Amino acid sequence: MSKSVKVKLNCPAPVQEFDSITIGHGGGGKLTQNLLKSGVFSLLNNEWLREQGDAAVIQLNGKIAFSTDTFVVSPLLFPGGTIGDLAVNGTVNDLAVSGARPLYLSLSFILEEGLEMTLFYQILQSIRDACVEAGVEVVTGDTKVVEKGKGDQIFINTTGIGETHPKANMGMNRIKGSDAILLSGPVARHGITIMSKRNGLEFETKLNSDTRPLHRICLELMDKFGSKIHLMRDPTRGGVATVLNEIAEQTGLGINLIEKELPVEDEVAGACEMLGLDPLYVANEGLFVAIVDAEIAEECLDLLQKWEHGSSAAIIGEVTEDHPNKVVLHSSIGGRRVLAQASGELLPRIC
Amino acid sequence: MSKSVKVKLNCPAPVQEFDSITIGHGGGGKLTQNLLKSGVFSLLNNEWLREQGDAAVIQLNGKIAFSTDTFVVSPLLFPGGTIGDLAVNGTVNDLAVSGARPLYLSLSFILEEGLEMTLFYQILQSIRDACVEAGVEVVTGDTKVVEKGKGDQIFINTTGIGETHPKANMGMNRIKGSDAILLSGPVARHGITIMSKRNGLEFETKLNSDTRPLHRICLELMDKFGSKIHLMRDPTRGGVATVLNEIAEQTGLGINLIEKELPVEDEVAGACEMLGLDPLYVANEGLFVAIVDAEIAEECLDLLQKWEHGSSAAIIGEVTEDHPNKVVLHSSIGGRRVLAQASGELLPRIC
Repeated sequence: MSKSVKVKLNCPAPVQEFDSITIGHGGGGKLTQNLLKSGVFSLLNNEWLREQGDAAVIQLNGKIAFSTDTFVVSPLLFPGGTIGDLAVNGTVNDLAVSGARPLYLSLSFILEEGLEMTLFYQILQSIRDACVEAGVEVVTGDTKVVEKGKGDQIFINTTGIGETHPKANMGMNRIKGSDAILLSGPVARHGITIMSKRNGLEFETKLNSDTRPLHRICLELMDKFGSKIHLMRDPTRGGVATVLNEIAEQTGLGINLIEKELPVEDEVAGACEMLGLDPLYVANEGLFVAIVDAEIAEECLDLLQKWEHGSSAAIIGEVTEDHPNKVVLHSSIGGRRVLAQASGELLPRIC
Repeated sequence: MSKSVKVKLNCPAPVQEFDSITIGHGGGGKLTQNLLKSGVFSLLNNEWLREQGDAAVIQLNGKIAFSTDTFVVSPLLFPGGTIGDLAVNGTVNDLAVSGARPLYLSLSFILEEGLEMTLFYQILQSIRDACVEAGVEVVTGDTKVVEKGKGDQIFINTTGIGETHPKANMGMNRIKGSDAILLSGPVARHGITIMSKRNGLEFETKLNSDTRPLHRICLELMDKFGSKIHLMRDPTRGGVATVLNEIAEQTGLGINLIEKELPVEDEVAGACEMLGLDPLYVANEGLFVAIVDAEIAEECLDLLQKWEHGSSAAIIGEVTEDHPNKVVLHSSIGGRRVLAQASGELLPRIC
């Protein structure tokens, strides 16, 4: 999968009647058909899309995970990804951390009049590449167009369906007061990449977004540890601090977070300082938090560290019955402070 | 279900910290949580939403229909409905015409900074009411906020899952050269309602949108006629003419459409004349086309006409092996003309 900012057109771009999206492309008539045929259907070719029905019919049995996400990230292209692969990986990962194998996606666009066809096609290609990498199929979709000034080039919704792992038994109610908290890799890469790009700092760092599918490692954890994994979450908007606060609030338990165990890359730390951001509140895309039975914590860490993106995975803290509903950060120099829930206005349109 | 333009706040509107949506409501932190708790979660309360997981886990077995639609209709409130019930019914109907019983929906918002809280809450209530009427549950969702001028108040994506009826056996490849074409009711109500409202003509007509769930009647047809129903489609964007053209194109067969059999209400016909629109190309919401084996056409019509919204259902034409790929309209005064595929720019943002 191409991870450069300039997505390469690795097959000839289709001949289009228009250089950019017009209102007519959203009318459901001939223009819509031509747009889909030349782009979506040729790139994401499969039996379901060829049928062009109002719904795709798929065979499913058992416990199914179902998740939706809309992507409004700005800018659309950034180091390490595009809104397109973010849209695929984001929903794939919501299924992954729910203990499911992602299988099928729906894909729905809101295009703004004037969106350049070549940009749309680049994004479609990144969607295709991300689907291939994650092993999922787009089986149904929708395309709407809004007038210039009523959107922002492109918004994407993906909704996904996955088969839940037979050993998955996770939920807030499974978390115990002695559980260990693991993090699968370094924090804040995605958010810092986007913020650097927005602030024109991208040439001062080599940072890339960490957008990637997580289901293979999540399913491996399920295979090996089953119900000893009590919860997994991907700390996207609001970052690690927000996920931990949600856990503390919903379980009524407390959380101890050990600052010196937190994997933060030097470049991320530097950019955070420059931008005035706390990396614990910055969005991630290819990262997950796992709350696990303390007795398997070390073994779980070993497995995570063997994963190609897990070399800096760490046990970052523990759940506790002390200080209910509070996340307490134990700082490297010995202090303690409550890590509050973010109010949320720091980093708009990060995903 | 309230069908008036002014959606009634039939339970006290929650106390909000803000009169309108701010960028912070999309940050994933405390503001997002408060917004969801006071609105979505309290109105659409169920076990899945209470869990607040990254994905909902549901039990499914067999052939499952999966469909997505994004709604960008303008205006947001119109006679007979809102963008909210349109978003529920639209996806419910995509499942319905696929021969499925709609069960679960995902619900995803793109809110524009500045959207009035009371309007958002009205729309949420219409979503709740439409879900109750259709018997479906919203089990997972997402809320994003974009800056003022980068959206248009609210866009909604719904993606739905339904169980396919065991007797459903539909598809373009099931259509035969002698099939009958039925229409479940009068054409063009939704599109004309929206266009009248946009053009300030709504006080000259009593027209309401025909937005409504169709699955009960569609499933009744499946029960009774099974595989003799060869295809169903809901003629939304692009209207009846577009659906028939898609069928002609994809099957390689021809279609004869009998103008005098087409149910068009006087008010719709009048408004179409005033607005310069052909009702066959105007969007519908609570209408479907059924292509059925000729031998059951009359019986099928009887059943449709007994449906509460089907009094003007009609057999409007037939599939033929003559004039492949062409839809030919036989006019009331004896002429014949090809009903071309719309290019699609006539009616933007109708759904």
